[in-house]
Amino acid sequence: WSSLPRRHTARQTPAANERREKKTTKKRLKASDLQLRFCTNETQAARETFVAKLQRLGFDILVSEVFSPAPAAAAVLKERGLRPHLLVYDGLLPEFDSVDQSNPNCVVIGDAAEKFTYQNLNEAFRVLTDLEKPLLFSLGQGRYYKETDGLKLDVGAYMKALEYACDLKAEVVGKPSPTFFQSVLNDMGLQPHEALMIGDDLVNDVGGAQRCGMRGVQVRTGKYRPGDETHPAVTADATVDSLARAVDALLRQRQQTP
Amino acid sequence: WSSLPRRHTARQTPAANERREKKTTKKRLKASDLQLRFCTNETQAARETFVAKLQRLGFDILVSEVFSPAPAAAAVLKERGLRPHLLVYDGLLPEFDSVDQSNPNCVVIGDAAEKFTYQNLNEAFRVLTDLEKPLLFSLGQGRYYKETDGLKLDVGAYMKALEYACDLKAEVVGKPSPTFFQSVLNDMGLQPHEALMIGDDLVNDVGGAQRCGMRGVQVRTGKYRPGDETHPAVTADATVDSLARAVDALLRQRQQTP
Repeated sequence: WSSLPRRHTARQTPAANERREKKTTKKRLKASDLQLRFCTNETQAARETFVAKLQRLGFDILVSEVFSPAPAAAAVLKERGLRPHLLVYDGLLPEFDSVDQSNPNCVVIGDAAEKFTYQNLNEAFRVLTDLEKPLLFSLGQGRYYKETDGLKLDVGAYMKALEYACDLKAEVVGKPSPTFFQSVLNDMGLQPHEALMIGDDLVNDVGGAQRCGMRGVQVRTGKYRPGDETHPAVTADATVDSLARAVDALLRQRQQTP
Repeated sequence: WSSLPRRHTARQTPAANERREKKTTKKRLKASDLQLRFCTNETQAARETFVAKLQRLGFDILVSEVFSPAPAAAAVLKERGLRPHLLVYDGLLPEFDSVDQSNPNCVVIGDAAEKFTYQNLNEAFRVLTDLEKPLLFSLGQGRYYKETDGLKLDVGAYMKALEYACDLKAEVVGKPSPTFFQSVLNDMGLQPHEALMIGDDLVNDVGGAQRCGMRGVQVRTGKYRPGDETHPAVTADATVDSLARAVDALLRQRQQTP
C-alpha cells in the first residue's frame, strides 16, 4: 500500500472521496477473516506519527499493522551488531532510538530531503571510506517523487552517488526488497503463495511482492501509469481500477473457494 | 597531465622540489621538437585563471596548450546547437560566456562543490525531466578527491545520481573520454599512434589515451597507487618514477630513432 500520504503535502493526501471509499474497503477487509498488513516506503516520519495522522483522518489502522523501511533496518542493524551513521530525515530518527549509534560501522540513508547537503553527503562518504568493509543501507531506492512545489530527487539517486563513489552496492531495505516482504509474511505466519499484495506502484509493490513469491495486483490509482500494463519487466497478476474493486474480487473469490 | 593544482589548496599544489623538477623537464621538452599539450580535468576554474597561477609559479605554459573539459563542452554545445542549464563552480562560468544559455535544452554538470545543494540538484533534475529528450553532459566522472579538510564527492557521483533519477546515460566530456583525447590530437594534427600520454591517473590518463589509440605512460606520483600496476582493466605501456624519468626515456628514444 503505497498511497499513504507519504509526503506531508495536501496534494499527496488522498482526496475526500477516495478516502471515504478506502475507509469502507478497509472496514470490509477487517470484518473478514483476512489478515491485513500495510507496507509503505515512508521514510520521512516515524510510524507513530503517520499512523496517528491516518487515524485522525478516520482510518482504522494500528502501528503494529504497518511495515516501513526504518524499523526493518533497525531490526537488521541490531541482529547484525551494526552501529549506523544516519543520514535520514529528522522525523525518522525516533525509529532508531534503540540502536547504538556510537563509533559507526555502517551508513544508513533515507529520503533526507533538505538534509541531503553537500556537507552531509561528504560526511556519509567519509564514514564509508574510513571503514575496512564499507556497508551502506538505503531505505528504499525511489528515483524521484512529486511535491506541491515540484519534483524532488528521492533516496535512490543519493544511494547511486554513494555506491559509485565508494565502489560498493547498497543493501536496500523496504519495497521492492524481497527480504522486506518476507519479514511481513513472517509476522503474519504465512507462506508467500498464501498472500496477495495490492499496490499502485508496479515495480516496488507488485514486482517486489512477486519476486518474493506472492501474487501482486496493481490498482489504477496514485502512481499507476498507463504504460504499466505493457512494462518490459513486471506483469501484474491482475490490474483493477481501485482498492475497492480489488477487495470485491478477493472477497468474492474467497466465498467461492471452500 | 593531471597534477595541475586542480583544487586550490596548499596540499594539492606540487611541492617546491617537485615543481623545480617539473619546470626543468618542461623546458627540456619545449627545447625539443616535440609538440606538447596539457590535458586536465580541472573544472573549478577557467583556463585563464589556472594557467595564470601556473605562470606565477614559474611554469612556461600557454592557455592554448591546455585542454580541459569546459571549453571542450562549450565547443560541443555550439556545434550541436545546444543551450545548457549549468550546474558548475562559479569560477568555471567564464568558459561558457559564448554559449547561449536561454531556454535550456540540456544540462551540464561540473564539480560544483558547495553548489551541489539539494535545491540545485532538484533544479537540474527538473530541467532534464521537462525535456522531451533529456541530455546530460558531465565534465569528468571522478568519484572523489582529497582536500585539506578531507575527502569530497566528485562530479561523477552526482552524475550517477542524475543518471539514475532520469534513467539516462550522461555524455562525459574530459578524460577519459576518447573524444576528448581526439580533440587534442586534432589540434596537434597527429594520429593517435604518433602521440604519447603521460599521467599519474591510471584510468583517466593512461586508460583513456589507450582507448583512443595512443600509448599511455603512468608516473608514480600524485594519484598513482601501488595497486595500479596490477589493475584488472588498464595496463600502462610503461610505469616510471616521475615525469622527468618519462621525458628522459622519451628523448633518449628519439635520439636513437633516425
